[in-house]
Amino acid sequence: MGTTFMNQILIYRRGSGVCTMATGTLHSQLVFGCFLVLLLKSNLHTCEQFSIAFSKPSDCGVGGYFDISSLSCAKCGADQISGKSGNTSLNCECQTGFKVLTNNGASITCQKCPVSKPGVTQDGYECIRCSGSVGEDGKCECPTGSILGECVRCQDSFISMSQSCMCGSPNILSFTNLTACQTLGNMCVLNMHSMSTIINDACGLYNTIYRATAAQGNNQNIPYWRINMPWLYYGDQPGLASRVLQSEPLPVGFSFKGTNKLLAAVYTAQGEFIRWESVGGGNLQLCPDTLIREQAAYIFGTAYKQNCVLSVSDLLAGQSEPLFYDIFLVQQKAQGDRRLLAVPILNLNLQFNGQFVNQATNMNSWYLTRRLVLIDTLSGREKSLSSTPRVIRIASNLKIRFQLVPNTQKGAVYPPLMTVSYSDILITDPAKQTVTVSFSVEYEMDQNEARVKTDIALGVLGGVAVVYSLLKTASWKRRIASPLIDFPTILKFLLIYAGDLANVFFIITVGTGLYWLIFYKAQQFVSVLLPLPSQEERFVTYVGCAFALKAVHFLHKLLVQLSVDIFFIDWERPRSKTSKFVEGSGEGKPPAAPVSIWRTYFVANEWNEIQTIRKISPTFQIMAILFFLEVVGFSSLALRDNSSELRRSDEVYTPAYSRILRYGLASVMWLCIGFIQLIFSVFHERFVEDKIRQFVDLCSISNISVLLLSHRCFGYYIHGRSVHGHADTNMEEMNSNLKREAENLCGQRGLLPNSDVQTFQISITSRLRAQYDRILEPLTRRNGPSRLVDASANPFEQSTKAYHTMNRFLGSVIDHAHREMDYIVKDKLLFERLIGMEFIEPMDKSIFYNDDSYAFADVLFYGNESTLLIFDTLFFCVVDLGSQNFVLAAVLTYLQQLIFRLIRNGLGRRNLVIKTLVDKRFLI
Amino acid sequence: MGTTFMNQILIYRRGSGVCTMATGTLHSQLVFGCFLVLLLKSNLHTCEQFSIAFSKPSDCGVGGYFDISSLSCAKCGADQISGKSGNTSLNCECQTGFKVLTNNGASITCQKCPVSKPGVTQDGYECIRCSGSVGEDGKCECPTGSILGECVRCQDSFISMSQSCMCGSPNILSFTNLTACQTLGNMCVLNMHSMSTIINDACGLYNTIYRATAAQGNNQNIPYWRINMPWLYYGDQPGLASRVLQSEPLPVGFSFKGTNKLLAAVYTAQGEFIRWESVGGGNLQLCPDTLIREQAAYIFGTAYKQNCVLSVSDLLAGQSEPLFYDIFLVQQKAQGDRRLLAVPILNLNLQFNGQFVNQATNMNSWYLTRRLVLIDTLSGREKSLSSTPRVIRIASNLKIRFQLVPNTQKGAVYPPLMTVSYSDILITDPAKQTVTVSFSVEYEMDQNEARVKTDIALGVLGGVAVVYSLLKTASWKRRIASPLIDFPTILKFLLIYAGDLANVFFIITVGTGLYWLIFYKAQQFVSVLLPLPSQEERFVTYVGCAFALKAVHFLHKLLVQLSVDIFFIDWERPRSKTSKFVEGSGEGKPPAAPVSIWRTYFVANEWNEIQTIRKISPTFQIMAILFFLEVVGFSSLALRDNSSELRRSDEVYTPAYSRILRYGLASVMWLCIGFIQLIFSVFHERFVEDKIRQFVDLCSISNISVLLLSHRCFGYYIHGRSVHGHADTNMEEMNSNLKREAENLCGQRGLLPNSDVQTFQISITSRLRAQYDRILEPLTRRNGPSRLVDASANPFEQSTKAYHTMNRFLGSVIDHAHREMDYIVKDKLLFERLIGMEFIEPMDKSIFYNDDSYAFADVLFYGNESTLLIFDTLFFCVVDLGSQNFVLAAVLTYLQQLIFRLIRNGLGRRNLVIKTLVDKRFLI
Repeated sequence: MGTTFMNQILIYRRGSGVCTMATGTLHSQLVFGCFLVLLLKSNLHTCEQFSIAFSKPSDCGVGGYFDISSLSCAKCGADQISGKSGNTSLNCECQTGFKVLTNNGASITCQKCPVSKPGVTQDGYECIRCSGSVGEDGKCECPTGSILGECVRCQDSFISMSQSCMCGSPNILSFTNLTACQTLGNMCVLNMHSMSTIINDACGLYNTIYRATAAQGNNQNIPYWRINMPWLYYGDQPGLASRVLQSEPLPVGFSFKGTNKLLAAVYTAQGEFIRWESVGGGNLQLCPDTLIREQAAYIFGTAYKQNCVLSVSDLLAGQSEPLFYDIFLVQQKAQGDRRLLAVPILNLNLQFNGQFVNQATNMNSWYLTRRLVLIDTLSGREKSLSSTPRVIRIASNLKIRFQLVPNTQKGAVYPPLMTVSYSDILITDPAKQTVTVSFSVEYEMDQNEARVKTDIALGVLGGVAVVYSLLKTASWKRRIASPLIDFPTILKFLLIYAGDLANVFFIITVGTGLYWLIFYKAQQFVSVLLPLPSQEERFVTYVGCAFALKAVHFLHKLLVQLSVDIFFIDWERPRSKTSKFVEGSGEGKPPAAPVSIWRTYFVANEWNEIQTIRKISPTFQIMAILFFLEVVGFSSLALRDNSSELRRSDEVYTPAYSRILRYGLASVMWLCIGFIQLIFSVFHERFVEDKIRQFVDLCSISNISVLLLSHRCFGYYIHGRSVHGHADTNMEEMNSNLKREAENLCGQRGLLPNSDVQTFQISITSRLRAQYDRILEPLTRRNGPSRLVDASANPFEQSTKAYHTMNRFLGSVIDHAHREMDYIVKDKLLFERLIGMEFIEPMDKSIFYNDDSYAFADVLFYGNESTLLIFDTLFFCVVDLGSQNFVLAAVLTYLQQLIFRLIRNGLGRRNLVIKTLVDKRFLI
Repeated sequence: MGTTFMNQILIYRRGSGVCTMATGTLHSQLVFGCFLVLLLKSNLHTCEQFSIAFSKPSDCGVGGYFDISSLSCAKCGADQISGKSGNTSLNCECQTGFKVLTNNGASITCQKCPVSKPGVTQDGYECIRCSGSVGEDGKCECPTGSILGECVRCQDSFISMSQSCMCGSPNILSFTNLTACQTLGNMCVLNMHSMSTIINDACGLYNTIYRATAAQGNNQNIPYWRINMPWLYYGDQPGLASRVLQSEPLPVGFSFKGTNKLLAAVYTAQGEFIRWESVGGGNLQLCPDTLIREQAAYIFGTAYKQNCVLSVSDLLAGQSEPLFYDIFLVQQKAQGDRRLLAVPILNLNLQFNGQFVNQATNMNSWYLTRRLVLIDTLSGREKSLSSTPRVIRIASNLKIRFQLVPNTQKGAVYPPLMTVSYSDILITDPAKQTVTVSFSVEYEMDQNEARVKTDIALGVLGGVAVVYSLLKTASWKRRIASPLIDFPTILKFLLIYAGDLANVFFIITVGTGLYWLIFYKAQQFVSVLLPLPSQEERFVTYVGCAFALKAVHFLHKLLVQLSVDIFFIDWERPRSKTSKFVEGSGEGKPPAAPVSIWRTYFVANEWNEIQTIRKISPTFQIMAILFFLEVVGFSSLALRDNSSELRRSDEVYTPAYSRILRYGLASVMWLCIGFIQLIFSVFHERFVEDKIRQFVDLCSISNISVLLLSHRCFGYYIHGRSVHGHADTNMEEMNSNLKREAENLCGQRGLLPNSDVQTFQISITSRLRAQYDRILEPLTRRNGPSRLVDASANPFEQSTKAYHTMNRFLGSVIDHAHREMDYIVKDKLLFERLIGMEFIEPMDKSIFYNDDSYAFADVLFYGNESTLLIFDTLFFCVVDLGSQNFVLAAVLTYLQQLIFRLIRNGLGRRNLVIKTLVDKRFLI
């Protein structure tokens, strides 16, 4: 459409006369009209900031008029008063009794009428005698029954003279006044401000005049706003765009309570100033919506986006003539002192010598402009004004961007930039054609500093994680009693490092989320603005890393738990004394009454059940999260505005969600509810029920110890030797035993005499472990590859034999009966506890470390609550980041927990069956 | 505002002349102008249906014109052609070369000009000679340089003659043509169509003319539409409203694919016809919204409601003059055959003799009207047209109601009714004043038939429920072996009846919900329409009843379960033969090795654990519901429109939810997912794990039987006697026993020889029960009031003694060792199974009924899945009905389930401790 426009004919209706103006050949007359005006004023000013004082036509008072070029008031000359056109005075008129002497468009001169001719003609250019009386307006009044007869004066800009008031071809009618310059400017605007050094079109002509009148001075002290001309460009020096946009902040700070009030000076295509219009309520927003939602665009800090599909026929019906907007940002420093800051426009369709310079990413090649047209249904009309346009142009994307000054505390912002791009629509079938338009307001701040800080944190914490992981790997090496650094060691290190690095990413992302949540939502004056969606990518990557690494870590832990070695040592000896010291010989004399296996079944069954219990209830966690986010409405806090309201009515505008805020909100809430549940669980365990202590108690009551080996030479021991000697007894004795213990009538349960400590972390010698493995060898062979299976051996017999041998062996070890596999009991050093590593290597004797905190829960879900909680949190957040749906995230998190619980239970039970030789039918 | 309007002055601008018309004194001139027109046509018609043929001004063709009163085409007279005003021909003009002879407003007569005077004057009333040539339009053309000079003819309706064309007071200018009658009608509309037999205002005048011109005939065969006059009223006969609205359906059936296209003939306040306008896109809808959402109002079956708050200043700015709408419903029978059905209006502000007759509920007192005005900013202007109105009136509530013809299959609907009510706003500060407006479209059908059907179903099913409850009460009486009908019996009956009645309500409500869901959403032609919110109250009450009754039922079941009698019979006898037959003597010789109590502990522990297991996973149920309703988007099906789309874009209109549909959707989905889970659980139990069968197996392996007494003389028995004689043994023997059993090397587990049946329902004799109670007496006393406690007795000893006594006693009963308490084993009759009642009373012998279906699960959650499922469903639905929030319902349902599970577990465990004498430390 760019060039076709110039070949078309614009027809302007004005008052009584209709005349054509051939813009294709832009006659000298128009230029003459515009020049004429430019000669009128010649005061030279310089300016520093592109803001002007606000004045309305009604402010200009009697004896003043509103200059539509400079948008300011000016004084009328001698013998003149303000003319009245509607409620505004845009020009001056001669006082009553004065006739117009000269009129060169922008100003007039007046002369008093002689006494003999006191009346003034209707057009004001001559003095006449009246047959009736002279009215208040100085014009003749007809007596009743008479009709006023007067000649009609031709438009005074006619240069080609003839006997009638018609434009003889090729001349065109031009209204030689301020509007001529405005019209020229508008034509340049309709032509997308495009310039070329070759073709001399509307913009070329504007620039020619602009350059030629440099000496005339400028409007309102703004260097690019020539007197009597519209302001279209911000000069063409390189780097000007960044100087305009980023050199100096606006003098008034912004708070979230405030609004960015925009004002627009509205002109018709003919260059007439219509009014000052408050932007909002649909003048820039083409999509229809309720007023309250439309005005949300101008609440500072609310990321606003409006999209819709408009019908072309509606556009044609609604927009008879294009309107032109000069847009200003209102700055109210004090009451009454309103300054208007010119808002620069980046028109993406502007061409300079055929190149779309404004689409470049480099700001230095931009040409910033002024004056905006939204819908151009005019240029596309062929031949006559009443014809349907062949093509229309619409501002399909309009974006206002505010950029925060870095490190501001008081809400300092740079001048906003309005970016506009146009779409051309060739009219074929208006009723069916549609066009997509969007309007958005963005608030941006430079995120480099935040990024640098995040990187530093990541570097530092990542380094710490490496050291910590190395330490844990060393500890692991000691616990498996392997001194070599081989491939498994490196793999193990990587697995451990994955977990630690995941924690680092988690800390950083949660911290970042929380930071934005608190600082963005809580600030009174604006000091930070949310990252734009495009600036969030890096954050999302971090969250992804955290989740992936945590998942590796979690699966690794699960795998370790599923392969832990466990054995239940039954201390019960048959009641008949004969079989008491038959050791190692396997099949001795059969005891009178066999020791019942049911206590072992009971303990094994309980162990099976506590495998997946957790300190928190994961389902309650999900429900609580859903309740707070979706029912109470905390999810509203993640919206891209400053409001902290939880419930938004349907009537107000709802901005888009910020992914960072969603993540921050969800993760912090997940951790908070988890923390509350943990506190609750502490109380619950203390005063109601503690499944882990119950299990230790059960061991003691049932006279069964538990040996857990999580590593080759490291594990846990729960001492369950009954203080009563026997537990395999009837109800009377059980009850009386329990009663005696409750009354402190018997010894203490501890491994050492007079000690209560039942649970230990153990570092065992390689010799002990070798013996342990040797006893289990026939069974591991059975579970190994089938070709190694000794087909002749009865598996039942083998396993019972192994069971008894192991039972006796471990019992004797605990009883210090094996000199070469003895052990000592000691406390762990504080530092050992802190870093989770044993300093002493068990060379000759195994070491049993006292452990009050039930560390054996490490091989259960119970002891890994933090890992599980973080994994669940990340899972929930990752699903939500992908789907922006908390309910879906909740459902999938539930399924994930369910599946992993089933896996842990099922495989854990299988492991238990293999390792403890308890039939799986008793693990129910 | 009603009367102030009449005292004001309306100023109409028209073409060149401006004249005032004092409506306050309604000059005879206006009446004269209107009468003049009325005399023109006099054909009398009668009509049956208030529909007209659709014709546009452009349809009338050459030689025709569009009569704005009758909205139809008429032919021009002799020597006449269609006049052109814009694109419409609303009158006729004389042919070229003819002058106007007479013009009485509605029609003209023409006369040919003589040859000597071939030209016609500009106004067309005289023939003249031209100094130049005669143009194509028959008027003189000036040669170049000449100006046309003519006299100006005064408006031809001037009766008061003077030398100038000005209205001499007190005369007023009236345009003596069709618009005069329209103007009068508009004034009546602005006055809310209010009539009075005393004051003769605009409507009174209209009615006077209406009555006086009865002989003139009617427009378009409609009896209330007088020729040349606007149609304002539907007569005043009593009962006319119901005849108009409910006597005859529209000739064209509606489908949900169709739209209710409304057309409006739009008139200005001056009575000029502007155009035919398609309703939609914001002419009746004052709230701004996107086109696509606004047009949703005219999709048949979509319950549409639009609410918003408008700023008064915007209203004033946007509405310079009121427009008047005559609204028609378009009925397209075939291509080209478009009929327009007049839409009657019920104006709630209409006063008849000062009474708001249209606000009555009785249709017979209504005055239906035509012609609608939305915003009246005109009547409130004082003194001049340019002044700001002191008061404005706005149609703040506009409702279009469609009513379905009962029992239609083809979408027959009665004529729609448009109800409007106005608000008056006294203008004080327009910028701050607001007004709430709403626009809605409702679809209604008579719900009486549905209600009657529901009542019948309720009656029938309620009766069945009474019979069934009586039967169950009788069964209960038998089971507690009490023949008296006392207060507890009545209470029990009521409790049982509550449960059955709850089921009845549940079936009816789910059925109703499903009915609407299927029939409403699936219909192509409209045969049913959803109940309006006000019609849903009854349904909601039913749901409430169902929930309350089911809650009573559920609590009652819970209470029964928490007080069930249970005892674990240990068959194990000590291995040393000496103590085998020491019976009843209490402290005999101490046995060599006591029988270990651990098997009992194990069984008790397992029983404790299966108390609250369910066939379905309640949490999975909730998550699945949430997933389908909120994530997949099934909740969209409950919206009040016919669409079955699950995902609605933000851009389309979202109607309100129907509570019935929400209930139907949620309950059906809940039941479906529950059913799927049940099917899954059947497979899972069969192929993976069946907790109940595992428990029975465990009993058998551990040599322990379980006796459950849910009623005084009724209960369940799980026979767990080990086929190996002993179970209290070591791992070898256990494993070999299990192996032998797997290889079928030993006897069968059943109570009877060679039988597999291990589980029984038992009806025991009162004697047996008495003995049972006697043994437990010391213990029940201990748990009774403290004053009855025998302080000297050692509770431990007492309970172990009772335990052993009970164990021996029950063992001997099962072993048929007690002649007087013997029992027989038999199958239940099919009918006994069906109605859940035993026909035979256990008089001499107890009866053990074989039971393969593990009926003992009735005392667990497991056996009451249907009750729990229905209770959960109702709980979910009731919360949702109250909050319209599925997420909240899900969260609360989860909490409810959690709380009841905790109660059932905690109190059930306490009951187990009391009844089985197992220490609670072993129930973990």
